[in-house]
Amino acid sequence: MLSTMQDVPLTVTRILVHGALVHGKAQVITWTGDGEPQRRTFRDVALRSTQLANALHEELGVEEGQVVGSLMWNNCEHLEAYLAVPSMGAVLHTLNLRLPADQLTWIVNHAADRVIIVNGSLLPLLAPLLPLLTSVEHVVVAGPGDRSVLDGCRAAVHDYEELIEGRPTRYPWPVTDERRAAALCYTSGTTGDPKGVAYSHRSIYLHSMQINSMEGFCLSARDTLLPVVPMFHANAWGTPHAAFMGGASILMPDRFLQPAPLADMIESVRPTLSAAVPTIWQGLLSELDARPRDVSSLREVYIGGSTCPPSLMRAFEERHGIRVVHAWGMTELSPLGSVAHPPGGLTAEEEWPYRVSQGRFPASVEYRLTAADGGLVPWDGSSVGELEVRGPWIAGAYFGGADGEPFRPEDKFTPDGWLKTGDVGAISEDGFLTLTDRAKDVIKSGGEWISSVELENHLMAHPDVAEAAVVAVPDEKWGERPLATVVLKDGTGVDYETLRAFLAERIAHWQLPERWALIEEVPKTSVGKFDKKVIRRRYADGELDVTQLDPSGA
Amino acid sequence: MLSTMQDVPLTVTRILVHGALVHGKAQVITWTGDGEPQRRTFRDVALRSTQLANALHEELGVEEGQVVGSLMWNNCEHLEAYLAVPSMGAVLHTLNLRLPADQLTWIVNHAADRVIIVNGSLLPLLAPLLPLLTSVEHVVVAGPGDRSVLDGCRAAVHDYEELIEGRPTRYPWPVTDERRAAALCYTSGTTGDPKGVAYSHRSIYLHSMQINSMEGFCLSARDTLLPVVPMFHANAWGTPHAAFMGGASILMPDRFLQPAPLADMIESVRPTLSAAVPTIWQGLLSELDARPRDVSSLREVYIGGSTCPPSLMRAFEERHGIRVVHAWGMTELSPLGSVAHPPGGLTAEEEWPYRVSQGRFPASVEYRLTAADGGLVPWDGSSVGELEVRGPWIAGAYFGGADGEPFRPEDKFTPDGWLKTGDVGAISEDGFLTLTDRAKDVIKSGGEWISSVELENHLMAHPDVAEAAVVAVPDEKWGERPLATVVLKDGTGVDYETLRAFLAERIAHWQLPERWALIEEVPKTSVGKFDKKVIRRRYADGELDVTQLDPSGA
Repeated sequence: MLSTMQDVPLTVTRILVHGALVHGKAQVITWTGDGEPQRRTFRDVALRSTQLANALHEELGVEEGQVVGSLMWNNCEHLEAYLAVPSMGAVLHTLNLRLPADQLTWIVNHAADRVIIVNGSLLPLLAPLLPLLTSVEHVVVAGPGDRSVLDGCRAAVHDYEELIEGRPTRYPWPVTDERRAAALCYTSGTTGDPKGVAYSHRSIYLHSMQINSMEGFCLSARDTLLPVVPMFHANAWGTPHAAFMGGASILMPDRFLQPAPLADMIESVRPTLSAAVPTIWQGLLSELDARPRDVSSLREVYIGGSTCPPSLMRAFEERHGIRVVHAWGMTELSPLGSVAHPPGGLTAEEEWPYRVSQGRFPASVEYRLTAADGGLVPWDGSSVGELEVRGPWIAGAYFGGADGEPFRPEDKFTPDGWLKTGDVGAISEDGFLTLTDRAKDVIKSGGEWISSVELENHLMAHPDVAEAAVVAVPDEKWGERPLATVVLKDGTGVDYETLRAFLAERIAHWQLPERWALIEEVPKTSVGKFDKKVIRRRYADGELDVTQLDPSGA
Repeated sequence: MLSTMQDVPLTVTRILVHGALVHGKAQVITWTGDGEPQRRTFRDVALRSTQLANALHEELGVEEGQVVGSLMWNNCEHLEAYLAVPSMGAVLHTLNLRLPADQLTWIVNHAADRVIIVNGSLLPLLAPLLPLLTSVEHVVVAGPGDRSVLDGCRAAVHDYEELIEGRPTRYPWPVTDERRAAALCYTSGTTGDPKGVAYSHRSIYLHSMQINSMEGFCLSARDTLLPVVPMFHANAWGTPHAAFMGGASILMPDRFLQPAPLADMIESVRPTLSAAVPTIWQGLLSELDARPRDVSSLREVYIGGSTCPPSLMRAFEERHGIRVVHAWGMTELSPLGSVAHPPGGLTAEEEWPYRVSQGRFPASVEYRLTAADGGLVPWDGSSVGELEVRGPWIAGAYFGGADGEPFRPEDKFTPDGWLKTGDVGAISEDGFLTLTDRAKDVIKSGGEWISSVELENHLMAHPDVAEAAVVAVPDEKWGERPLATVVLKDGTGVDYETLRAFLAERIAHWQLPERWALIEEVPKTSVGKFDKKVIRRRYADGELDVTQLDPSGA
């Protein structure tokens, strides 16, 4: 039986029109670093978005399905592009300004951006790349910055304000199929080319509803949101769309992401809710210790991107009365994910184990753990497996492979269409997720998984060990076994048997490494993480001096 | 460009599975009137729902697309039917047990219910109708009640518990198109046959997300919900689906809807949130005055169904610390509607004008006011028009007309597909709706609308007037003009000119009635509302002694 309900699509256009009409008085406040911040009402933002759409279509010839890039900070003009470009049926490609130049070039060419809207302050980054960006015909410059660096470039150059000025404030928004692409964001893994995720109107709309829900960020028209997480990073966790949908004012930090201006803008504009990675909050905490500001307007801050140290969460709560909420997500998940809201009826202390977990998923994110042997892992709080997810705002493929078709790499998608997150952890009976490892860092030994992170933490707790990295190496009998590489503290000398005995008191016998090697330093990536693929390669190349102990126990 | 997101449907099945897995410890608590309430976890409810689906399919032969009726109070078994029937691809038809017998018979036959699940306590209502219910092959009786009244009936009779006992706790849930019907609810207008609204999986899913949002009822896993509004009335405002989706425990009042047991169950089970019509809250307030109970667990109650007197809202807040939130909806809207959450940054007193309005609509409900001449009415807080709405959980047609096809009566749907709510009001600049009249009660005079309710309120403020009803009557020059019918208080005698002068100080001159009649009593409907169609008919039949004053001003 067919229902009798209206068939109305879920689109970014609806978010634009609704925000303008119903929440027209809410504000977008962009920090300018000196003097008064720039303030525009949602109504003005929507009118300017409409003018932008007209300009892109009339003047630059942008058609439905074409790609418009943005190389911008978090500011009002970026939000205008967020709303205008998808609403006119085109696709907004947010460019990560922190990517290496070659990757940035690669993704602009891969997505075939016809236009790039760029902040003036980022022109020094864009200008040298322009000759390599084969599809880019127009550059639109927003905000202050020296335009002369673009002199002589092949693309036509426009000033954002001049381009939109006097354009019509109405646009014949197309009725868009909710499954069409609205926005494009590339995720840069550690291996291979960046992979594009093409968010749909449907996924953005549903995700916005989720952010505004009690299981999400509890964002409402009574809030002012400070999105510190960049708008080029999974749509600033979807918060600008959600704020415009729900009528929350938005404080945009622009390029002022250092602790001091962040503290200044919080004191001055008084946001109620914020979202950022732990590093930002760590920096803000130190800044407030050094030079106190009134940050009492903040009721909650959402932390994600990497695991937040519980000490940081407690520090914010105890010293500033700000509740820190842990969340987990990925670009492929729009990016939400799980949120660590504890169950009801608990004391503050009882809430902590739930709050430091990755949290629970909403109904729209189905989740399961898969064991090394492919079987499902029970939700008992201790059995571990790789996290796989499924749902209407989760990627089911990547954008445009070699032949232009969506592609589904085997290491990223299961045959039945679930996304493999590459994260390993356990889920409690009541659905709370605790992640322990990246899948590539666990050792798959005889159908069981051994956590390299756990082994490393135990080894580094030994008084003579400076650093330790554990990696999986091939083993004929078990498939994989752990190799422990250890950096000793200066002037110390322990033997492997002692270290293994130390471990044996802390972990199961079958998890104990047989292979050991001393190294001078653990190789690191550019952001300071252990670079385990270097260790694995050195082992494969026979460069390590490996001692093999008698297999013990297993 | 197509997106790369997964194409996962929004279904009731997802709500069922998610609630069972992630919120398995939440509870459904059904009040039993004596002794301990019945308690089941979401996990148990989901298992029993699955057994019910197996029973309906295996034993009763229910197939996808067929209709299963429920004639039940708010209790756990009704929730099990809510989850099981749509998940197996069938349609749950909730039967309004307060309908007259002939209407109940009509809708069961119209929807072709094959099965009716009925509470034992409601058998005296169902038994006499059964011989007339031509499509009903099976009756499933849940809960206590004398089954002997069914002796000799044509349909097969089953006991709910015996039927589901021992059935498999797995079911091969079909992958359902989200636009298929999941539930069916008839709305009984004052004229014509009842009209069926067939909710889709999509509409129920999106509506549930909205109830759990900050713009909705802010319902979460930290709540215990008490839905007093019946589950046969627009799915209890969608709250049971939302609670199961978000993990809120549910206190089901079953048939104990009188003020005394409601107060008892609130004190005993301590719900945090409730939803009901104003009459319920008025009764509860009096009950608490007469015999105080501890109702401090309630943080918010949502009131809808009819306009809530501000005095009632204030009384709950001041005497019991419970915040009353006004909401508006219709069966055709799933039923939400607008919610009167005030904007941020206001004092408690400044919030009141917003809180006594009908509130604002979320992004998924597009709304507009249409004037008598068909033009759009500006959102200026004073211009009035008929409210029209559009969105993914709003009916676009009614279920099965004479030929079985969906039908779209002209007085209910605009040519461009919007639902005409039949309500008249104004919308403020920031989107807050204030309803003033039913469309059929406004007087369309020369392209302007005159509020009969406003005229009545002013007339009834005159010290000599006991009651007054104003209706539209045909007028050659203006299309329609108001007729004022007045009931004087005993022993008083005023002339019409005096009353008109009294009105003239309060309303615009062109709104003043020329036609006046004294009547002995305003005719009322069975629920005590003014029955204006009786007055209009008496006027048309020449039964009223009408005095025509000189036209004034207009």
